[in-house]
Order: sequence, then structure tokens, then C-alpha cells
Amino acid sequence: MTSEQITELVVDIAKRARAASLELATLDTETKNRFLNDLAERLVAETDSIIAANAQDLETAKNLGLSQPMTERLTFTPERIEAMAEGVRQVAQLPDPVGVEIERLAPPKGFDLRKVRVPIGVIGIIYESRPNVTIDCAILCLKSGNASILRGGKEAFHSNMKLAGIIKETLRANDIHEDAVQFIPTTDRAALNVLLKQDDTIHCIIPRGGESLIRFTVENSRIPVIKHYTGVCSVYIDAAANADMAEKILINSKCQRPSVCNSAENLIIHQDAAALLPHLAKALHDQGVELRVDTHAKALLDGSGLPLVDASAEDFATEYTDLIISIAVVPDIKAAIELINANSSGHTESIVTDDAVAARRFLTAVDSAAVFHNASTRFSDGFEFGLGAEIGISTDRLHARGPMGLNELCTYKYIINGTGETR
Amino acid sequence: MTSEQITELVVDIAKRARAASLELATLDTETKNRFLNDLAERLVAETDSIIAANAQDLETAKNLGLSQPMTERLTFTPERIEAMAEGVRQVAQLPDPVGVEIERLAPPKGFDLRKVRVPIGVIGIIYESRPNVTIDCAILCLKSGNASILRGGKEAFHSNMKLAGIIKETLRANDIHEDAVQFIPTTDRAALNVLLKQDDTIHCIIPRGGESLIRFTVENSRIPVIKHYTGVCSVYIDAAANADMAEKILINSKCQRPSVCNSAENLIIHQDAAALLPHLAKALHDQGVELRVDTHAKALLDGSGLPLVDASAEDFATEYTDLIISIAVVPDIKAAIELINANSSGHTESIVTDDAVAARRFLTAVDSAAVFHNASTRFSDGFEFGLGAEIGISTDRLHARGPMGLNELCTYKYIINGTGETR
Repeated sequence: MTSEQITELVVDIAKRARAASLELATLDTETKNRFLNDLAERLVAETDSIIAANAQDLETAKNLGLSQPMTERLTFTPERIEAMAEGVRQVAQLPDPVGVEIERLAPPKGFDLRKVRVPIGVIGIIYESRPNVTIDCAILCLKSGNASILRGGKEAFHSNMKLAGIIKETLRANDIHEDAVQFIPTTDRAALNVLLKQDDTIHCIIPRGGESLIRFTVENSRIPVIKHYTGVCSVYIDAAANADMAEKILINSKCQRPSVCNSAENLIIHQDAAALLPHLAKALHDQGVELRVDTHAKALLDGSGLPLVDASAEDFATEYTDLIISIAVVPDIKAAIELINANSSGHTESIVTDDAVAARRFLTAVDSAAVFHNASTRFSDGFEFGLGAEIGISTDRLHARGPMGLNELCTYKYIINGTGETR
Repeated sequence: MTSEQITELVVDIAKRARAASLELATLDTETKNRFLNDLAERLVAETDSIIAANAQDLETAKNLGLSQPMTERLTFTPERIEAMAEGVRQVAQLPDPVGVEIERLAPPKGFDLRKVRVPIGVIGIIYESRPNVTIDCAILCLKSGNASILRGGKEAFHSNMKLAGIIKETLRANDIHEDAVQFIPTTDRAALNVLLKQDDTIHCIIPRGGESLIRFTVENSRIPVIKHYTGVCSVYIDAAANADMAEKILINSKCQRPSVCNSAENLIIHQDAAALLPHLAKALHDQGVELRVDTHAKALLDGSGLPLVDASAEDFATEYTDLIISIAVVPDIKAAIELINANSSGHTESIVTDDAVAARRFLTAVDSAAVFHNASTRFSDGFEFGLGAEIGISTDRLHARGPMGLNELCTYKYIINGTGETR
């Protein structure tokens, strides 16, 4: 396609999404849920054709020499398609966020003034390899009354196109505006650039992917972006920590699933709890974790026989997503809070302590989306928070912070019922 | 200053604001209110020196040939300084938004999970001529626990520098971090460009000014921007409107203060209520309002003897901020809603009707921040909504929509109190 054709294509998609969004905003819950349950059925019924489309992507992946983990994430199996369909049925079960009264205000003139939850409008989602994101994002946007424009990566292009086709058929079959979910049928980066400039018709961009994708989006978008950056999460073991609880929470936070954003990357320990360090370090080592230590921690672990790596300053700001941990010993809770606020990505931190005053201080002063007292960082998740679903975990502060569920895919409007009031 | 010096200056201001914001976030309500009451006193005590600084700006304004209304907005008098101080005292009286529990969640694992209101962090405010904005924005940010970076226009430079100096003295005198409120001491546009790139240290930009300032900000900012665009507001008179109420609301919405964003620019009238049009048009004309009519309205007003101007399509999307109104006659409520959603700036619209079904349909389908039934659009305002103060009226959808008070200058965090839970 020429650059004019790409511009025309993307501008047209955005305009049609805006028109669809005005219809979607007033759609009843029953129709939305009927659509979702129908989509789940069709996905299962189309298992063979989805796997056939996916085979084309896997063939390309082989030719491109894609890594084993990337290829694995790209692959559809009948079980994965069934799991995806089950996710769709679960979203059908969730309460409809639209139209819920959030707050009743008390205006001085006394008219009836309510703040009511409504869809944002048109949401653009930009994502990378995993094709099930196409379904996840489409259904969360639709359930929350938003039109969506999906732009997936080239690795999953055929799988995505197939899924987008099934969504479109299901929209038509359920008499929903067929532009309610649209997939950009090209992976040309020029299309992304045009998309990010459509601030008259698109209201929000959510990039789901690596840091470079998010950076590119922020630097090129005129549309507000909700960022889901990395998770550089810390566990802080306070002077008054219970030793067993400290070990349990640390090991769970670091090791239960090290590849995800809510796993811990840093262990910070109060010098008065330093006696716990040799045992904790051994427990981490036994789980296969590499120990990167500051000078104070190194001195304390010197005779332990454990393999130690000197931690650099940047290590404390690094998301390893791997079995590696940075360890610092601090003189007091103030130093712990400062170290976290200077290095954290603002995602999730946890304090282990039996001291209620220390806990309160940490929970107040640590500037992260989720702050835990005596619990694993691994709970920082939409499902674990009881949101029922999540489109991601925002490391932004505006609009949505932390796990984003259906409510966070909505905005609000003020509805006033008067009896002829004037100023 | 060289461009390197400007970059160094602005980067340093932003870093110091970030450090101050971490202290401010934990500041108690009493200290914040003591600061505000002290500031009010000092502003009044410094009346002469504020007026002396203002005189320098007025001298420059004369030399630059600034228009009479612009010069008027720039001018400080003892009465205006007293009113500004009174505004500061009122903000001291408002409840502290920080630390308030917004929601208690029900996580499946049963730990205690609360969503608590916290400051955003560092807010950059970019504004134009009126120097009282310096005080307004500084105090609302401080009360909500945010550090602020203020960048005013060149017309009010000396007045702004004087006010910023008084704020700094008051911060010091009350033992608050002196970088909690900072004013950019240059009006060089290069400084603004550097400011808008500091997304590591600044969390939100609020431009307050004309459309070109807002456009510039959106196109050059890597930091999320909350926009306060124009208000293209409509009054829709439905088939079932009460004639007296229709006139009262229309005249109030259009004429009570035509220069502000919540005044009406469009009158849309159902053809079954068209019999009201000659009387309404006469009432508008008697208030000095120019009538811009579509062909249907023109036909209905043909024999009225009123001066009529043909409305263009763009007129219905134009903020006049003047005694001018665009008038359209529509066949049904559906056409009214479509006309509004296609032309409105998403600020405020009102329906006048005695038909509850029509009202509900309008309130649901009109995609604006505030939608009124049988009340004047002029109530779309932070004070009239009972927010106690407002930093502006957002025409954005993310984070804050409509009037923005202290709560809207905050974000939230999740606070979890566990008993050793792991996954």
C-alpha cells in the first residue's frame, strides 16, 4: 500500500470506530453478554481453522528464526483455544460497569447531580506477539461499551486476522455495529503512526508489549496513552519482621513466577534484621536465584559459601524477570523508602513487619500503585484483587493505576436532573 | 540564557519538584492549611509590592498595544488581591482529599484491600495572561499534596515572579519543602519544550489557555496532558418542553455570561416545538443575541422581522463566547443527539422536556461531560457542583472529565494488609 492508502485506511477505521462507539455506549447488557457467549462457542467451533491460520504464522516464525519462548507464546492448541473461550464466558458473567452511579453530589443549588460510569469511547490497543490478546482486549472493551481498534504484531498476523474475522461475524450475527471491533489489516509501521495521530476519533491508547513499543507509542501519540511499563518490585524486611513470614513472602514474591511483572526484583533488609540474611540468602540460592549484593550485604554473607555477585546501582532499578535478585541492607526504614522511591517502577512493593507504625509509614510513603503489608507482591493482579479480569497493570498515575479491570476501561459523566434551575 | 542553560534550569526544577512531591504526599492537613492561611495574610500584606510589580507588566502591555480586555484581565487592584486571598482561605477550609478511602475491595483470598486517594505527584501548569492563576493553581496543587511547576505567560511575568516569591517565603516560614511550588523564571519557549519532555519527574500537564496553547502542549508533550478545550454547548428544546422553562433556561444558558465555556452556543429545537421558536428568537434578540439559523429555522422566522444570518455547518461547532447563537430545527430527538455528538466539544448540553423517556434517552446518548435535564448549562462548574474549587473543566475523558476539583488532582493507590498470604 502507498502511504496515502495507509492513511486513508486508518483514518476510515478510526471514524467508523467512533460511530460504532456512540451505539455501543447505549447497548444493553443482555446483548453484550449474548455476543460474548456466542463468540466463545464460535471460537471452539472454529478450532481447526484457527489452528490452520496459526500454522502459517508458525511457518514464518521458523523461517525468521524466532526464539523458542516466542514461538511457544505464539502457538495455538485446542486446549488454549478452549481456555480462551472460557475467558470469554467469564467476562460475560462479570457485572456491566456502564451506567453504574459512582457518586451522588451535593450541589449548593440542590438539583439532583449524579456521577455515572460510561465508556471511554474508542480505545486503540497496540500489542506484540501473543494472538490471544486480540480476543482478551476485544471482549473487555466491548463489555465496557468501548469500540476497539486492535493493532497486533507481524508474528501473529494470520492468527489475528482469523480471530478478527470470527469477531466480525459474531458482531453481525448479534446485530451489533460491525465496526465495534476492528483489526488493522497491515503491520506496516506507517499505519501505527497514522493511528496515533487520530485524536479526534480515538480517545485512549493502551500499548501492551515491551519497553521499546511503549516508548515509541508515547513519543508519537497525540492520543492519551495508558502505560504498562515494567515491574521493578521490592520486598522490604523490617527490623520487626517475623522470620518465617519474611522467608515465605520473599520466596513467593521472587520465585513463584519470576517472569511476570509483579514478581520481586529487590530484597531490602533493615540492618537490625540482618541476622536473617544468611538464612534468606540460602533459601533463595536453593531455589536457583542468583544473589546480587551491595557491600553491606556482601560483608554479612561473606562466610556463607554462597556464590555472590556485586550489585551495581542500576541493578536496583532493573526488571530481571528471571531468577536473579538484588539485595541491599539499609540502616533504617527511611533509607528503605528512599531506595524504593528512587528505583522502583511504581508497580508493587511489600513490607514484612509486626510493627504497625512502621507498616503505616511504609504504606503511606512508598509511591507505588500497590503497597502490601505482610503479603506477597504476586497478589498485585486484577484477578487476585477481585476485578474479575484485567487488561493490564498500569504504571501510570492518571486515570488508572495498578490492575485495570472493566471499571478502569470506563470514564464518567455528570447527569443533572433539574426543575428549571437557572443562575 | 543559552539553550544548554535553559535545559539545565528546567531539568533541575523538575527534579527538585519530584523530591518535594514525595515529602508533600505525607504532609498533614494542619500544616497545609496553616500554610494557606499564612499565604492569604501575606498576599494582603504585600498588596503594594504586588501592585508595583503588576505596574511593570501594565507598562509593557501599553508598549505592546495589548487589547483593553487583555489589559483588564492582567490588572491587580487591592480589591482583586483581597479576593484572591479570600480564595486561598476558602481552599484551607475544604476537606483534605489525601488519604481518603475510595473503595474497599473483596479479593478472593480475603486479605484487606483498600483503594486510597493519594496525590498525583508533580503537576505542570501552563497558562496565559491572568496572574491570579499562579495563586489558584499553586494552592489547589498544594492542598491536594502535589508539587507544582508553574509556567505563566510573558504578559504577567513580573506579577507572577512577585507572587512566586511570596509563595516561596510562605513555604519556608511554614517548614514545607521550598520546591513544592516553583515558577519557571523565563518565558522562553525553549523552556516549555524542555519541560514537556520531563516525563521521568513530572506526572501531569494542565494547560490553561487558548486552543493554540493546548494544541502546542499536546503535540510536544511526553507527559500526560489533561485538556480544557472550548465549550461548544447546546440547549435542546424537545417536543414536550414547557414553554416558560424553555425560555428561562435558554436565555440563562446563552446570555448570563456569554464569555465563559459553559454558556450555550447552539439552540436545537424539535419541529413539534417549532411554534415556540418565534417567541424564543425574539427573546434572544431582545438580549442582543445575533441569530444564525439553518434553513428550517429561517423559514419559521421568515415573517418575524428579526435580523437573521444563515448558519454555516461550522457554526454549530463554533464557540462564540459572545452574544451569537446558532439555531437548528430537527425532525426528532435522534437528530438532535446526532447533531450534538457530531459538533459538541463534549463539555455540557441540556434538554428541556417534560417527557421522562426523552430525557433519559438524551442523558444516556449525549456523549458530553455534563448533561442536564431542565437546568441551565451555566451550572457546569466546580463551585456549582459543590466541589468547593476548580482548576478547570476537562474536555478530556481520561482521569478527569468535566469540572476538576481537589479530588481530580489526585490519583489512588491500593493498600493491602495481609497476614502472611502467598500464592
